[in-house]
Amino acid sequence: MGYKVKIGLSNKHVHLSEDHIKVLFGCSHMLTEAKPLLQPGQYAAEEKVDIVGPKGTLKGVRVLGPARKDTQVEPSHTDARAIGINAPVRESGKHEGTPGCTLIGPCRTVEIDHGVLLALRHIHLSLKGAEEAGVKDKDWVSVKVDGERGVTFHNVLIRASDSYENEFHLDTDEGNAAGCGPDSYGEIL
Amino acid sequence: MGYKVKIGLSNKHVHLSEDHIKVLFGCSHMLTEAKPLLQPGQYAAEEKVDIVGPKGTLKGVRVLGPARKDTQVEPSHTDARAIGINAPVRESGKHEGTPGCTLIGPCRTVEIDHGVLLALRHIHLSLKGAEEAGVKDKDWVSVKVDGERGVTFHNVLIRASDSYENEFHLDTDEGNAAGCGPDSYGEIL
Repeated sequence: MGYKVKIGLSNKHVHLSEDHIKVLFGCSHMLTEAKPLLQPGQYAAEEKVDIVGPKGTLKGVRVLGPARKDTQVEPSHTDARAIGINAPVRESGKHEGTPGCTLIGPCRTVEIDHGVLLALRHIHLSLKGAEEAGVKDKDWVSVKVDGERGVTFHNVLIRASDSYENEFHLDTDEGNAAGCGPDSYGEIL
Repeated sequence: MGYKVKIGLSNKHVHLSEDHIKVLFGCSHMLTEAKPLLQPGQYAAEEKVDIVGPKGTLKGVRVLGPARKDTQVEPSHTDARAIGINAPVRESGKHEGTPGCTLIGPCRTVEIDHGVLLALRHIHLSLKGAEEAGVKDKDWVSVKVDGERGVTFHNVLIRASDSYENEFHLDTDEGNAAGCGPDSYGEIL
């Protein structure tokens, strides 16, 4: 039996830079935490924005906090296609060759010329979790999800750090393809 | 190396009974072929309908022809969730325990009380293909799709018949999760 990790399903979301928060929501605005996420310090914010591409708009997309160095927009492939954006699969923060979009907030609008990506699937592990699983930071693994729509995901990146909780991040396309619910687990092979 | 089968990606679609075609499009209406599909005799029709669920509407959903004995509605899980329908995974034609929806055509509206399902992933094989692949009708196999978003799909049903062409059917969630394009292949393991 491989090491089991709880699956965290990521709906489409946006990370914003401090500057873009000010433009979209107003000069002195600070993000308001609505719900903590499993990864320490990360949260779903009350704030939402619209994401505009050449063929349409994704309305009311959740902002995740805290602010980041660079704004990053993470639709699923289904979402990206719906608004006509051809987004590549990228590790978080790696924006080379990524397309941009327009973000609409209640205050003003931001045009970004890069930062839209499909999240590369990855597993957050604590250092203890990584040791128990027999893997280390930056390893690539395959992860099996059991069930009626059972799937083995290949090319999954391990991100191990003492600031992480164990969690296998999938987007909604991946979660739906594997029939995942709120209590699904993946097994590192 | 396993046997390779071309992937056919199915966007959300509807199969209609003769009676429902008459109600939705008019008494003497016949479906008009827009484009043949790979499976012999099957085609994408010119006709489209809206699918209405408790939380929303999927507009302009393609009808596939020819007419079937029973109307069957096949959204992806993403599509079904968007309109608030909790559809189970089912083999084509197996409607026990499936929910209904409202279909809106240019002429009139149809309420169905069953027939909405998430297509169980399956591979159509000619009898020659099945022999070459070393499988038979109703076998269950795993199928690997290579690439950046490489995935192995488990619990894939083999449907072998002398009236089929070789084709691995996935819905858009599954295709997007595996990074599939128009020229992707799956390998029967």
